[in-house]
Amino acid sequence: MKKADEKDISLVDFNPRTDQMTELWFQDSIEFGHGCSLHIKIKNVLFHYKSKFQEIIIMETEKMGRMLAIDGITMLTEFDEFAYHEMIVHVPLLVHPDPRKVLVIGGGDGGTVREIIKHPEVQEVHVCEIDEEVVRACREYLPSLASSFDDPRVKVFYEDGAKYVKESPGSYDVIIVDSTDPLGPGQILFQREFYEDMKGALLDQGIAVTQCESMYLHQHVIRGVYSFAKDIFPRLGYYFTMVPTYPSGLIGFYFCSLSRDPVSDIDEDRARTLKGLKYYTPELHRSSFTLPRFATEFFRPE
Amino acid sequence: MKKADEKDISLVDFNPRTDQMTELWFQDSIEFGHGCSLHIKIKNVLFHYKSKFQEIIIMETEKMGRMLAIDGITMLTEFDEFAYHEMIVHVPLLVHPDPRKVLVIGGGDGGTVREIIKHPEVQEVHVCEIDEEVVRACREYLPSLASSFDDPRVKVFYEDGAKYVKESPGSYDVIIVDSTDPLGPGQILFQREFYEDMKGALLDQGIAVTQCESMYLHQHVIRGVYSFAKDIFPRLGYYFTMVPTYPSGLIGFYFCSLSRDPVSDIDEDRARTLKGLKYYTPELHRSSFTLPRFATEFFRPE
Repeated sequence: MKKADEKDISLVDFNPRTDQMTELWFQDSIEFGHGCSLHIKIKNVLFHYKSKFQEIIIMETEKMGRMLAIDGITMLTEFDEFAYHEMIVHVPLLVHPDPRKVLVIGGGDGGTVREIIKHPEVQEVHVCEIDEEVVRACREYLPSLASSFDDPRVKVFYEDGAKYVKESPGSYDVIIVDSTDPLGPGQILFQREFYEDMKGALLDQGIAVTQCESMYLHQHVIRGVYSFAKDIFPRLGYYFTMVPTYPSGLIGFYFCSLSRDPVSDIDEDRARTLKGLKYYTPELHRSSFTLPRFATEFFRPE
Repeated sequence: MKKADEKDISLVDFNPRTDQMTELWFQDSIEFGHGCSLHIKIKNVLFHYKSKFQEIIIMETEKMGRMLAIDGITMLTEFDEFAYHEMIVHVPLLVHPDPRKVLVIGGGDGGTVREIIKHPEVQEVHVCEIDEEVVRACREYLPSLASSFDDPRVKVFYEDGAKYVKESPGSYDVIIVDSTDPLGPGQILFQREFYEDMKGALLDQGIAVTQCESMYLHQHVIRGVYSFAKDIFPRLGYYFTMVPTYPSGLIGFYFCSLSRDPVSDIDEDRARTLKGLKYYTPELHRSSFTLPRFATEFFRPE
């Protein structure tokens, strides 16, 4: 028991810096699988809700604009989302000779749709997003992305993406799988059956592009998809984009094509007419298919 | 005052998980300048010393091998250092037609020297590292890099790099500036006078390559060096490499050349003879000079 006149060290030492605000940090719940984790300083939480499917949080960060995380995993920040959305969209749309009908699986934040509707050839954009609450929250708090849903060419279906693709044979010029990681319900989007169904859902000269993780961290996922996708699509490529707020600072995509070549069939005239690009150029499009030596090994017989 | 029979909540709730080890995390002291910071889980500290110049720490990480940090900033992990060292070395050495004498400024960990001595043309490697304690610590705890100092072609000088370059006119085929960031004593390596002195220290057809930060985070540094380097070197390029444990996951270099072109003058025959590469290929060498659109703007008149 402490005596009344005894000096209370802990209180004397407690010297709050009243000129400073409490620091709040968001920690990405993905540790890279490598004991390595990104922390982002935030100002406040704008939206926090547990939907039927997942936990959705939108924050105002200190210096990276607004940020969306789902189940504790960074989906995007306004600082670098352009690098992801421009590359998942313009690469397939500028290789396809006439992309009129486009399907997006996932993509409830609207960033992918925002880039798609920059193409005047596009007549219909169907978005198949499982969680209506993501779209609702992004419309409210991420208008720089989700206001794209107001374009009259866009229709959103709140359905299961894998099922939707299975039931849409011969329907789309381009399919873009803007998905989360292969965890829980997202797992099915990394499996053979889904890739076969995507092939079935494409029209002549069709192209599907799928989010497929980091070459530094998810070798097994990239190799796994390759093992069956190479037999399904006549032309298959893998390319990357650099997104600092994603684990390892980059993310890759599979380019799955019925006939067009991802590198030699770019329509550079159409590329020049696109407005407001910050990442994409036709030169970068080509060079993004050139991978570091260790990653080229993923696509050789083991 | 609490009564003796009152339940002490804080003690009852305190339930240590004795089956788990305490987690130790290294936090990179660079917040990207953007309220964004990388944390790396470590097992233990192998070496920790404050030298005359800086604080040096070498740690065993959980899953990324050993790691060197100087003044709290990540210098390398064994997980991804190959991406940095291969690209800072093989790009200039495979563009130079006959690199016999090579100077390294900084590079006390030995990774850059390890890649240089893979080239049989190289007859002398001079390393000018200001801090002897870095070399000593890395020889002991990072032999996968620093055992390269045992090669008989290598000589280490513990001197100031800027002064050394000024006093070595017409001496080197290739100069590699494997430096820290433009903070404190490193600042001089990002200034006009140093670039002029490097030009003076080069032999005919000479090439200098300098570490020059992240295009996502340090636009002002990249633009600043460009503003004078473009008038000093007849050919100037900027390229990048992807290093997940660096802030933003990438880092770039200036390629400063008296005559050789960084993209069209690659010696692919010599490239094919190099052993043990994990990142470099001649194709990747070329594509690394292709930058995202926002970064191409750094090199246009403002």
